Amino acid sequence: MSSNYLIIMAGGAGTRFWPFSRQNFPKQFHDILGTGSTLIQQTAERFEGICPQENIYVVTSREYYDITREQLPFLTDDQILLEPGRRNTAPCIAYACFKIAKINPNANVVVAPADHIILKPEEFRRRLTLALDYSQNADVLVTLGITPTRPDTGYGYIQFDDSDDQEVKKVKTFTEKPNLEIAKMFISSGDYVWNGGIFIWSMPSILKALDNYLPEIADAFREAQPHFFTEGEKEALDMAYPRCRSISIDNGVMEKAENVYVVLCDIGWSDLGTWKSLHENSEKDEVNNVVSCYSMLYNVEDSILKMPKDKLVVVKDLKGYIIAEHDRVLMICPKEDEQLVKEFVAKAEEFGKHYI
Amino acid sequence: MSSNYLIIMAGGAGTRFWPFSRQNFPKQFHDILGTGSTLIQQTAERFEGICPQENIYVVTSREYYDITREQLPFLTDDQILLEPGRRNTAPCIAYACFKIAKINPNANVVVAPADHIILKPEEFRRRLTLALDYSQNADVLVTLGITPTRPDTGYGYIQFDDSDDQEVKKVKTFTEKPNLEIAKMFISSGDYVWNGGIFIWSMPSILKALDNYLPEIADAFREAQPHFFTEGEKEALDMAYPRCRSISIDNGVMEKAENVYVVLCDIGWSDLGTWKSLHENSEKDEVNNVVSCYSMLYNVEDSILKMPKDKLVVVKDLKGYIIAEHDRVLMICPKEDEQLVKEFVAKAEEFGKHYI
Repeated sequence: MSSNYLIIMAGGAGTRFWPFSRQNFPKQFHDILGTGSTLIQQTAERFEGICPQENIYVVTSREYYDITREQLPFLTDDQILLEPGRRNTAPCIAYACFKIAKINPNANVVVAPADHIILKPEEFRRRLTLALDYSQNADVLVTLGITPTRPDTGYGYIQFDDSDDQEVKKVKTFTEKPNLEIAKMFISSGDYVWNGGIFIWSMPSILKALDNYLPEIADAFREAQPHFFTEGEKEALDMAYPRCRSISIDNGVMEKAENVYVVLCDIGWSDLGTWKSLHENSEKDEVNNVVSCYSMLYNVEDSILKMPKDKLVVVKDLKGYIIAEHDRVLMICPKEDEQLVKEFVAKAEEFGKHYI
Repeated sequence: MSSNYLIIMAGGAGTRFWPFSRQNFPKQFHDILGTGSTLIQQTAERFEGICPQENIYVVTSREYYDITREQLPFLTDDQILLEPGRRNTAPCIAYACFKIAKINPNANVVVAPADHIILKPEEFRRRLTLALDYSQNADVLVTLGITPTRPDTGYGYIQFDDSDDQEVKKVKTFTEKPNLEIAKMFISSGDYVWNGGIFIWSMPSILKALDNYLPEIADAFREAQPHFFTEGEKEALDMAYPRCRSISIDNGVMEKAENVYVVLCDIGWSDLGTWKSLHENSEKDEVNNVVSCYSMLYNVEDSILKMPKDKLVVVKDLKGYIIAEHDRVLMICPKEDEQLVKEFVAKAEEFGKHYI
């Protein structure tokens, strides 16, 4: 029996892909690249041969229970963890770890976001296996470090110790979203990688780290633990969550711990956090358009048409635009202005909750 | 009892407002200006006080029977004339006239398209009353001539005899869609008006004119006439229509007859034949946008958003565009290129009948 477990974090309600990604149907549940499976389905599939399906746990919001069941029908109710509130990744991971620990205190655990893409799954599995081998019997916290391809200022960077030839590198520092100048220095230095947000650790290691660095969160879930896998789980969570502050596992644990390691990966990773990254990672026509519907395009280039599949869209004379529609909202906006989407969403709420 | 009758021609399947106007739901059945009533409803309402509702006859296609009943519920089945095919306006008018003639051979008849707008209905009724008074007891064919406001090359022009001060002017010539140079000459000459496509005549006059200028069409409907208002009407029409060539009443009768008169009108008329005319005739915001839905517009000017009412549309950086959506089709096109809509429709059919 495999002791490898997977925790998929699927509670986000990201609005960066609004109007496509919506509060009641966020990005991770969309087939955003038009490949035939949704991001969360791709995430689960990616671990085939590494984690058996009965060892996959999804942490999400109660409102996404139905979509999760529908998209990952192999999950039992025990494998769908419903957070009563959003508290960033640390409480999410703590909940899942204390739950899995109850049935397997020696689990070897991978934590992965539901909404990233990895274009080289074979290579991903090779590097992940390396990380799992490393974490299994050592008191270490391992993360996947993505070989950077550009000085992106939207990512976190990990500096690693390059002094020996080990395949698993000791982490020196974490830096969140540097400015462009610093990002360029990081890239040229050669000892920085992007933080891929995928973590690997043994159960004893993560529980110890939580106790050390986030004791109030560890306590909250340790007290709730006796109720996990029972009818009292929901009530216990309703008690535990208000005791947790909202904090990421990176801030709360990884940046503080001394035993953090990184496995360098070149796996075609993207967090698909922007329309630009969606454009980059999607199949394009000969004039650089990404199109998800029936279309008649006249003098349209370098644009994204993210529309319901059965829609016919006729466009003339637009370059570098996002044209996106979902459930009663249409957005037509230059790609360059995608940072405005947040403002759009805030303003859209004035027209009604169902528009966001 | 009034002897005034109204024939509304509502068989068109105009595609110029595609994707809004569609084969199964053409323009005349849309509330295209967002006023709360559709074009055909406005047309019928416009004749209040002139033609009693029981004297209103609508000629349309069989496929629009249901919409017609729904939108003009006062009509009996006898008042909804269903053409078995499209043969332009002459057969349409001949059918309606022979039908009305069967119950009132001395009817005084107005023929009006279902899809025009008239912004000054009071003035329209005054001029129409003048025309009806003139036609009632004379062997004349009267048309409404619209005071032109620009050298439009899309309209028909009527030259009238300005030699006396009569309110009803004798018509000299008809000219269809002149080029711009000629249109400008017409305007500056002062004795040309636009052909509004609204005709007024007594029943004896139109039947005589049909006999004279379109005898084969007159014969077809005269032979069908005994079956009108009976169960045999549909079968009789299926016999009559194939005998008719496709020809407009303008070409077939008005341009040939000697007894044609025009009543000059300044009534805020438009045939709403183009997106440009829709833009002109609609309420605009302070930067000249016509908007039919919830919207958030950033640096958008001089554009038309013709969208489903409950849609929220966010647009940035577009000027002079048409953004129109209806039933699975979205079009985003510069207003200047609206003549391409015909091509769009032809091409759209390749994706499926339901897109046109």
